[in-house]
Amino acid sequence: MTAQHRELLVAAVGGDASRVRDGDSERDLHSEDLSFHPPRRPDLVVYPTTTAEVAAVLAVANGHDVAVTPFGAGSSLEGHIIPQRGGISLDLTRMNRIIELRPDDLLAVVEAGVTRGALAQAAGQHGLWFPVDPGADATLGGMAATNAAGTTTLRYGKMRAQVLALQAVLADGSIIRTGSAAAKTSAGYDLTGLLVGSEGTLAVITELTLRLQGIPDHTVAARLSFADLETACRVATAAVAAGQSIHRLELLDATTIAQVNTYQGTSFPVAPCLFVEASGQSSAVDEELGLVLELARAEGAIDIAVEEDPDARALLWRARHDAAYATSAAAPGRKHRSTDTCVPLSQLAAHAAFARTTLEEAGVVGGIIGHAGDGNLHVGIMLDPDSPAEVAMADAYAERLIVDALSRGGTATGEHGIGLGKLHALELEHPDLLGLYRGIKDLFDPRGIMNPGKVVPASPDLPLH
Amino acid sequence: MTAQHRELLVAAVGGDASRVRDGDSERDLHSEDLSFHPPRRPDLVVYPTTTAEVAAVLAVANGHDVAVTPFGAGSSLEGHIIPQRGGISLDLTRMNRIIELRPDDLLAVVEAGVTRGALAQAAGQHGLWFPVDPGADATLGGMAATNAAGTTTLRYGKMRAQVLALQAVLADGSIIRTGSAAAKTSAGYDLTGLLVGSEGTLAVITELTLRLQGIPDHTVAARLSFADLETACRVATAAVAAGQSIHRLELLDATTIAQVNTYQGTSFPVAPCLFVEASGQSSAVDEELGLVLELARAEGAIDIAVEEDPDARALLWRARHDAAYATSAAAPGRKHRSTDTCVPLSQLAAHAAFARTTLEEAGVVGGIIGHAGDGNLHVGIMLDPDSPAEVAMADAYAERLIVDALSRGGTATGEHGIGLGKLHALELEHPDLLGLYRGIKDLFDPRGIMNPGKVVPASPDLPLH
Repeated sequence: MTAQHRELLVAAVGGDASRVRDGDSERDLHSEDLSFHPPRRPDLVVYPTTTAEVAAVLAVANGHDVAVTPFGAGSSLEGHIIPQRGGISLDLTRMNRIIELRPDDLLAVVEAGVTRGALAQAAGQHGLWFPVDPGADATLGGMAATNAAGTTTLRYGKMRAQVLALQAVLADGSIIRTGSAAAKTSAGYDLTGLLVGSEGTLAVITELTLRLQGIPDHTVAARLSFADLETACRVATAAVAAGQSIHRLELLDATTIAQVNTYQGTSFPVAPCLFVEASGQSSAVDEELGLVLELARAEGAIDIAVEEDPDARALLWRARHDAAYATSAAAPGRKHRSTDTCVPLSQLAAHAAFARTTLEEAGVVGGIIGHAGDGNLHVGIMLDPDSPAEVAMADAYAERLIVDALSRGGTATGEHGIGLGKLHALELEHPDLLGLYRGIKDLFDPRGIMNPGKVVPASPDLPLH
Repeated sequence: MTAQHRELLVAAVGGDASRVRDGDSERDLHSEDLSFHPPRRPDLVVYPTTTAEVAAVLAVANGHDVAVTPFGAGSSLEGHIIPQRGGISLDLTRMNRIIELRPDDLLAVVEAGVTRGALAQAAGQHGLWFPVDPGADATLGGMAATNAAGTTTLRYGKMRAQVLALQAVLADGSIIRTGSAAAKTSAGYDLTGLLVGSEGTLAVITELTLRLQGIPDHTVAARLSFADLETACRVATAAVAAGQSIHRLELLDATTIAQVNTYQGTSFPVAPCLFVEASGQSSAVDEELGLVLELARAEGAIDIAVEEDPDARALLWRARHDAAYATSAAAPGRKHRSTDTCVPLSQLAAHAAFARTTLEEAGVVGGIIGHAGDGNLHVGIMLDPDSPAEVAMADAYAERLIVDALSRGGTATGEHGIGLGKLHALELEHPDLLGLYRGIKDLFDPRGIMNPGKVVPASPDLPLH
């Protein structure tokens, strides 16, 4: 990056030099996410406020072979926002306007930097909500770029299912609009779906049209403890079929429960545990959750707690959402690495057993949590990123888990994405698709400036600076 | 096509000359779909029975610049299966094995030629069903290729939402697998979603892994008649918010109801009408359908009929599913042309009013039916395809409707696709995306042999033969 680049970038954001920053602390803040991946600083942090400014920044970057890595809340778990080749960290958090909220159309139009929480608040005033909750208060642009999921994906799907239309900027600075505000379309190839989950490697998403849902009348949560992980998984897979009102179905193993108890001062039985929530018309909720409780009793549940009260439910879900923090707190000074395998439901119990046994064999300390209703497991491993031996052991463990998931018809990543850490996993999973991925990347981003090194390997001889 | 091509194709299907046909009747059967588009015969019809044979056929075609147009049930409404540049009609109906039905995983693996009806029958034995029903007993490969929808799309989504994984053959004969059997994945760009809806222009889908749903415990249907179309649309948009159990919400205008009465011998009030169906736990169904009926009464519904009995419900839905045939029967000797605009819900009433007024102004005879819950309207126009004046008038009408839908934030096609008839509409809707569509087409099919002339215009100088 030269002084000339910097001048061009200042011009691209309307001459406002305060939005093109190279201070150390600012670069540090944009050098790492929540994962174990080593930080890497950008040369500059640029804060656009409009799509036109994003377009102008990209035109400069593309014309001068400068890498661009989009940045939202920085809550990625796979290194997506680490500027692996330096260049520009494009911070979209100042594009945080809710452009339209249309209750009659059950949709919202938002800028990419609007957070999930801000949309929830605005939609709630109309009795509506947005159903994807990855835990962190991520930006909606970042959530779309990584096709984020959450605890209610079981019923509502991931981000891709919520995005009706996008405005995005291509590498050369051209602005495109995909999709429409209609509930469905068959107009042309599905570029909306292609950009969702492309991890900032094809385009910068600047505006999203999102589906909203009516807030359910009635919600009840339950915590079910079991003697062993396999039984918990078996109940979970059966519960998926209990009905449409079951919208959350989460698994925590005994290790994780113990960490949560320590972290939050709760006293949940230290045993594998399902957190289940049903929502909808109260009669259907009672009927369907009742089925799950019956099932749990028949399978010998050792503890069952049902919570209707909103505060009690919030406490229960805080335990689930804070599980990763609780795991981190149990190993101070270490970094959190999460696996993300996902298998067909019938394989969940066996895959979880494999995860647990292999963890113990390897002598790695870690807890298992999972979106059991989706067949998606996260093993949280605490490691010292400066210890090559620990990193190598965690790598070997993660790969064994991936190979096991693939052998069961599953996938290396249910929701965290490829990012920096799963390039090799993608080669294992889709060796026959690597050429098409590369072709698509080259079509959208011929000079390779867009978030280089994610999803498809960066060419080491790219003249990025 | 030469004798040498034919010999190579016979070799590609294992030397079985009976599966490479050039008889007149066979070529006629593969020359037209259910639409108004003029027929065009293929040179040969080839019937592969395995993915390997499809690969061998495509390798021959690609090596000799022969066009290939996949064929399923022939029930397209936009000319998808018409071999616009001659060559091979690749009939996949003999690939009709249900490879796996996995109730525990709520999925099925099927060959592309399996029909919706065949899957429904097999899944029903396990208390499961497949929720996309476009009316015709289409093949699942064809439904995926066109991203088909149906009356339950309101609740379950279109084909893209049901497809977990695909096996497909690229133009050069290479076989790829996208997706996985897990309920969700974030591994790489979404090629599954890209191939779904690509209308046979990027690859031939040979095998699909599809989500299945539990058959709801309880289903109730209702027919609601209103004094005018706007009121019917208004009730429809409000009914969408009534709850998750509302899974069908269809609109028929007075003209269509009159045609249905004549065709089926029914005596429904000749007035705009909603067909609504709710399913799920009986308590939720009663509660939510009750809300819709209350709403209808408040809006002055002139007739309400509620049907719980399966036979009575079947009769009601036969009326809806046969509406297009009833319209055809009302104009013997003419061809059916259907528009397919889709708008945000709040725009449905105004768009429907525009469609009706413009129809009357143009003096075109046609009925309006619609997937009202999705904001998707079909105006069925009966025309003489040999009358340039009638064709021109229908073209002009269709374009006015599309321009109106686009001005309301909608789309030219909610579900029928681009095919032959909406290339111009796609230019109107997504002028900024045409270059990317072309780039994707060229990446997957560099020689332009895959269903040429659909989605993206065929190069007239392609040396296809």
